[in-house]
Amino acid sequence: MSLDDAATKPHERMQAALRDDLVAVDALIQARMASDHAPRIPEVTAHLVDAGGKRVRPMLTLAAARLCGYAGTAHHKLAATVEFIHTATLLHDDVVDESQKRRGRPTANLLWDNKSSILVGDYLFARAFQLMVEPGNLRVLTILSNAAAVIAEGEVLQLTAAANIATTEDIYLQVIRGKTAALFEAACEVGGVIADRPEQQVRALATYGDGLGIAFQMADDLLDWGGSDGMIGKNTGDDFRERKLTLPVIRAIARADAAEHAFWQRTIEKGDQRDGDLEQAMSLLRRHGTLEETRAEAFGWSVRAQTALEVLPDHPLRDMMHDLADYVVARLA
Amino acid sequence: MSLDDAATKPHERMQAALRDDLVAVDALIQARMASDHAPRIPEVTAHLVDAGGKRVRPMLTLAAARLCGYAGTAHHKLAATVEFIHTATLLHDDVVDESQKRRGRPTANLLWDNKSSILVGDYLFARAFQLMVEPGNLRVLTILSNAAAVIAEGEVLQLTAAANIATTEDIYLQVIRGKTAALFEAACEVGGVIADRPEQQVRALATYGDGLGIAFQMADDLLDWGGSDGMIGKNTGDDFRERKLTLPVIRAIARADAAEHAFWQRTIEKGDQRDGDLEQAMSLLRRHGTLEETRAEAFGWSVRAQTALEVLPDHPLRDMMHDLADYVVARLA
Repeated sequence: MSLDDAATKPHERMQAALRDDLVAVDALIQARMASDHAPRIPEVTAHLVDAGGKRVRPMLTLAAARLCGYAGTAHHKLAATVEFIHTATLLHDDVVDESQKRRGRPTANLLWDNKSSILVGDYLFARAFQLMVEPGNLRVLTILSNAAAVIAEGEVLQLTAAANIATTEDIYLQVIRGKTAALFEAACEVGGVIADRPEQQVRALATYGDGLGIAFQMADDLLDWGGSDGMIGKNTGDDFRERKLTLPVIRAIARADAAEHAFWQRTIEKGDQRDGDLEQAMSLLRRHGTLEETRAEAFGWSVRAQTALEVLPDHPLRDMMHDLADYVVARLA
Repeated sequence: MSLDDAATKPHERMQAALRDDLVAVDALIQARMASDHAPRIPEVTAHLVDAGGKRVRPMLTLAAARLCGYAGTAHHKLAATVEFIHTATLLHDDVVDESQKRRGRPTANLLWDNKSSILVGDYLFARAFQLMVEPGNLRVLTILSNAAAVIAEGEVLQLTAAANIATTEDIYLQVIRGKTAALFEAACEVGGVIADRPEQQVRALATYGDGLGIAFQMADDLLDWGGSDGMIGKNTGDDFRERKLTLPVIRAIARADAAEHAFWQRTIEKGDQRDGDLEQAMSLLRRHGTLEETRAEAFGWSVRAQTALEVLPDHPLRDMMHDLADYVVARLA
């Protein structure tokens, strides 16, 4: 790897390495999100799809298939499937969370209405299932339909866990698997399955995707608390205000004394938050060392993802996937 | 057929004939709508599933498979799939329509919240896809995923067609196929596919389901206008008030003179409705004969469904399906 390569972000190097595949996937996404009859559908999806995002999930499918030596074109359909499932969940999430912005633009529920977001999300789910059926691989279908169930279950779990200070680490892990890691895992795994690789390598790809997704989401949750230093900035504390239970808080509650427990009950469970509460919460997390611990957990999942890659063929894309696992936690360094 | 049989409603006779199959399907529905982690899921679904409905859609799958001589158990999974897709669309429909009642009980969005209805609907969609993958029949998967796309597209189309007096009969047909007929069609068709019947019979089952669904929905839309007599009752005029374009209105608008057109523009397009407008609308439908025509269309689709059955094996369930096509329009007699 040259110094120039090292200076580029790993997902940008993947984008370059997979350029032709990504062009094909984009064409497929444009074709399949269309509707002859209901022009509202491409309007809403184009708003979201054009806004970009980094296309990390479909890239994982493409990278996994390519590094496994896959020479066909079915991976394009699977990559588009993964992006459709992701986009559908974003549309529904924004309704559920009453979000106003996504990727720096007003959300679809704001520009159109909740109804359009719900129904166009359903349409994208259905289109995703049509696409995934086309390669005719039953194992791929099992993997992706299982992922869809884990995602939906995780969303419901997150809804019912909100403001519940009895939320355990187990539940947190299920929520972030549903929110992020399940689709990362499936995206990687189907790449290996479509390439017909040995079971050990397929499992390795799944483990990589799971670890990458968990590391990424834990890092995100930690950054909402200002990172492991617990520095309050303008993007800090959203989860606290929305009474979301993430790992640093869950562990701090588990170790709380009576007064601290009363604090969490008031601020998270009852939602009675006052000036200075965010600072107080932060100081409790620092006191119990849970920010630093969450950082260590995220790095642990990242290393787990990288270790899994070892059984896969030596390939530049494998190196980029390795570096991507570094990158998602590098924000915490 | 004895007089006793004739006196029983056809779907009740089907229920009796398919009792063992239905018990198995119910057990599967209970097992698969559960969630180890998120108790909110079975709460919401049980509320809807227990409220019953007639289970017409899963019965069609069971009946189609049985009359085709199917002796396996995969039809149970497909019947449960069909019911899950139906239940998921009901949950989302109630959010989109801001409904308060469903099957005589308060809706889930009212008892819990819109968020739960959206996310539990997504969960049921995902569970439906998991279930349909299990029998390992790719053609079944193509049929059901296509149906899911038609359903979702029809819902979006209905949303954008609402209050639009330029809505055509073609669009109306697409909307009611999405709303009702596509799932009826797929429910019947997969029964024939899983039983491995010749193409002609599989097509016949699909045509039956399509015709039955369209006849059913047209009858429903006509009854909202008080049936072909145009009698105003306590359940009349909901579609008018909600500015929904159904066949009797679409045809009346197509034949409207300038004054009538202005009336439809004011009441449907602008939504400015006053005392006496419902009566005025009704009298326009009667004047143009569109209630009577819609009744004839519904009967036509019912006959088309029955005619399709002729190539199928002689079987008591075939007779019940025939009678069911009479029954859905008998309300209009």
